[in-house]
Amino acid sequence: MRARTLFTKTRKEAPKDEVSKSARLLIQAGFIDKLQAGVYTYLPLGLRVLKNIERIIREEMDALGANEILMPSLHPKENWETTGRWATMDDLYKVKDSSGRENALGGTHEEVISPLMKQFISSYRDLPRAVYQIQNKFRMELRAKSGILRGREFIMKDLYSFHATEDDLVDFYERVKNAYLSIFSRAGIGEMTRLTFASGGSFSRYSHEFQTVTEAGEDLIYICRKCKTAINKEIKAEHAECPSCDGDSFTEEKSIEVGNIFSLKTKFSEPFGLSFKNEKGGSTPVLMGCYGIGLGRLMGAVAEVLSDDAGLVWPKELAPFDYHLIALGPESGKVFKNAEALYEKLSSAGVRVFFDDREVSAGEKFADADLIGIPTRIVASEKTAREEKFEVKERTAEETRLVGESELIPR
Amino acid sequence: MRARTLFTKTRKEAPKDEVSKSARLLIQAGFIDKLQAGVYTYLPLGLRVLKNIERIIREEMDALGANEILMPSLHPKENWETTGRWATMDDLYKVKDSSGRENALGGTHEEVISPLMKQFISSYRDLPRAVYQIQNKFRMELRAKSGILRGREFIMKDLYSFHATEDDLVDFYERVKNAYLSIFSRAGIGEMTRLTFASGGSFSRYSHEFQTVTEAGEDLIYICRKCKTAINKEIKAEHAECPSCDGDSFTEEKSIEVGNIFSLKTKFSEPFGLSFKNEKGGSTPVLMGCYGIGLGRLMGAVAEVLSDDAGLVWPKELAPFDYHLIALGPESGKVFKNAEALYEKLSSAGVRVFFDDREVSAGEKFADADLIGIPTRIVASEKTAREEKFEVKERTAEETRLVGESELIPR
Repeated sequence: MRARTLFTKTRKEAPKDEVSKSARLLIQAGFIDKLQAGVYTYLPLGLRVLKNIERIIREEMDALGANEILMPSLHPKENWETTGRWATMDDLYKVKDSSGRENALGGTHEEVISPLMKQFISSYRDLPRAVYQIQNKFRMELRAKSGILRGREFIMKDLYSFHATEDDLVDFYERVKNAYLSIFSRAGIGEMTRLTFASGGSFSRYSHEFQTVTEAGEDLIYICRKCKTAINKEIKAEHAECPSCDGDSFTEEKSIEVGNIFSLKTKFSEPFGLSFKNEKGGSTPVLMGCYGIGLGRLMGAVAEVLSDDAGLVWPKELAPFDYHLIALGPESGKVFKNAEALYEKLSSAGVRVFFDDREVSAGEKFADADLIGIPTRIVASEKTAREEKFEVKERTAEETRLVGESELIPR
Repeated sequence: MRARTLFTKTRKEAPKDEVSKSARLLIQAGFIDKLQAGVYTYLPLGLRVLKNIERIIREEMDALGANEILMPSLHPKENWETTGRWATMDDLYKVKDSSGRENALGGTHEEVISPLMKQFISSYRDLPRAVYQIQNKFRMELRAKSGILRGREFIMKDLYSFHATEDDLVDFYERVKNAYLSIFSRAGIGEMTRLTFASGGSFSRYSHEFQTVTEAGEDLIYICRKCKTAINKEIKAEHAECPSCDGDSFTEEKSIEVGNIFSLKTKFSEPFGLSFKNEKGGSTPVLMGCYGIGLGRLMGAVAEVLSDDAGLVWPKELAPFDYHLIALGPESGKVFKNAEALYEKLSSAGVRVFFDDREVSAGEKFADADLIGIPTRIVASEKTAREEKFEVKERTAEETRLVGESELIPR
C-alpha cells in the first residue's frame, strides 16, 4: 500500500482523553478511532492487524476440528429467561422494538448455541461437536476507560464444545488450552502470558484464564515460582499451594485477561433440554465447554506490552505489513524511482509493503515508521543508491545493514 | 470437508414457518437457521457462501482504491441528532444503558463516517477518498418475513466516497456502477439484475438501484425494452420515457433490490462541518456518495433465482465447495478408499471438496447433493472403479461422464 492512498494520518501527539498506553499509541498511529467510551472504529492499519489475529485464531480453531458459524446479536428475551440470565446479568443491553418485543444484545452466546445444537444432536453418534464464531459482542461496561482492552462493543471468538462424557470434555478442554497457548505465542505475547487457575463457578472446580503480565493490567495474579502457572485473585485466599505443582511461593503481578475457558458441564444444556440418547437408549444431558478470546483486547494487549517509547512494535504474524519502505528525496529523483521499483517487485512477489511515498521530511517518515511499528524498515537514499543497495533495519534493533534487492525479494 | 465433521444436517422437509423459497431451501439444506423473524445464524455451509460474497465484494472495492475499515454499532444519540435522523428514522433501534445514556444501533453509518473523515480531510489535497466496511446492521423491520432477503439484523457492505468536485463524484459514481455490475455478474445473477433509476431525494435528480428480477421480489420495476435499463415504481409516474435512452416502452417485473448507490452531495458533510480548503484557500463542504450491498440479501437473491425443484444451485464463485464427492458402498470397501484417496489429493491441491463419507443410502446422498447445490458432483461406485474412473455431473446438467483422476486434479 502506498501511504498516499491511505486516508488516515498519524497524529503529532497522543489523544488526551485516553489513559491506557495501548489506546494512546493505537490512536496516535491511526490504527483505531474512538467513537465514544468503549466503542471504537478499526481504521485500515488496525483492521489489518485485527484480520491477522482472526486468521491465527481461525487456523487454530480449524485445527481443533471446530466448525465456524456466525450467530446474530438480537436475541429473543425468552432465550435469556430460560437460563435466568435476563434478570441476573448486569451488563446485558436490552432493546425493545416498536411492537414492544424485547431483545438482548448478545454479550455471549450460550443462549443461542444451546437451542441451535438441540436441532442437530440427538444421539451419542452426533457427539462430540465443537462450534465457534468470530463476532461482535455488547456488554454494558459503565467505566470503559481502557481503549480496546475493555469495550462496550468488541469482537470475540467464542468456541463451544459438546460432549457425551466427562473424559471427552476434559480431553478437548486440554486441547483448547494448547491451542490458546499457541495463539498467544504466535501473537508475540507467549512469554508473558500465563495459564491461570480461576473459579469454576457452581459447575466445576476451576476455570482457566490466560493472563498477560503488564503494569497496565486491571487484574492481579499470583505466579507459582516453581511451575510458572498462576492463580487469580478471586481464588488466591483458598490456595496456599499451586493447584498445578503444589509449589507454595508466588510472585504477584498485574495482568490483562486475554482469554478464558470454562467447563460448563450441564449448566446450559439442562435448561434448554439439550440431551442425547446414549448407547443404552437412555437420555442424558450434553456436557458443554466454552472458550473465549477477545480479538480487540488481544490487539490492545500486544500494543501494551510490546511497544516502546518510539511507538508500536508488531510481531511478524500480526503486523499490518512486512516492510515499511521509505524513499528519501523527491518523487522525480532516481532514489524514489528505485524505491518504487522495489515496491512493485515486492508486491508482485506477495510481500506486504507499506510504501511511504509522501512528500514530507525524512524525520517525519522515520518517526512515523517507528510509531506504526512494522517489523522491518527499508530506506532508499542517495547513499544506498550509490552502492546499489537498500538500508534495512528491524524495528527493535539499533543497527542497520545494507542489503541488495535480490536478498529482499523472495523467489 | 468430510460430511461427518459437519455438525449440521439437511432436513427431510422445508420449514413450515418460512414463505420465501430461498429461506425454505437455505434452512432445509443447513445453510442458515432462524433465531427469530428477520434474525438468522449462518451455519458452516452458509458462512462459506457469505465469505465468498465478501471476498468478491472486497476485491471489487479494493480495485476502486477504497480503504477498508470497521465501524461499530453503538452510535451516540448526539451524532444522529446532528442530522435530525434520531427523530425521523422509523426503523432505528434505540438502546439505553443503565446510566440513561442513549445509543442508536447502526442501521447505516453516515453519522459515524462523516465526523471520522473530518479528522483526516482538511485540504483539497486530501481528496478524493473512498472508505468501505463489511459490517452488521440493525433495522427495525416489523414485518420481516422473507428470510435473509429482509433482515432486522444483516451484514452489509457500505462504501462512502468524498470528493472536492461534482465531476469527480460523478466519475467515481460511474466506476462504482461498473464495480456493482461486476459483483452481481460474478455472483451469477448478472443477467437478471437491472440497473434501475430511483428517486435521488432532495439532493440529486436520481439514485440508482440494482434490481434482480424474480417473482419473489417485493419491488416493481419497469424495464426499458430498448436499452434494458429500468426505472422503479416510485418514479415511474413521472417518466413516460426511459431516462437512459428515451425509449417509451417498458415491461413490468417483480424484483429484489440487491444494491443501491446514492449521490449524497453535501447532505451529511454540511451538518457535520466536513469541509476542505480549496486551491484558493476558501472552505467548501465535501461532496459525498454512498453505496450499499446487503450480503445476506445477495445470497438470498441468488438462492431464490438460481435454485430449482431439487434444491440450491450455486454459481462457481459463491459455492461452499467446488466438488461434492460421493462414495457408494461401505467404508471398508475399495470404492470408499478410492474416493477417500481422491479427496485427499484434491484437498492437497487446494480444491475445495465436500466428501460425503456418511453411512447412509445412495438415494439420500444424491438428494442431499442436489439440495446443497455444489456445482459439480463426483461419484465413486463399483461401476466407476471397474473402469478406474469417477462419474462427474454438473449440478444443472442431466448427463454424467466418466473422468480419470488425472483430469480432476489440477497441476
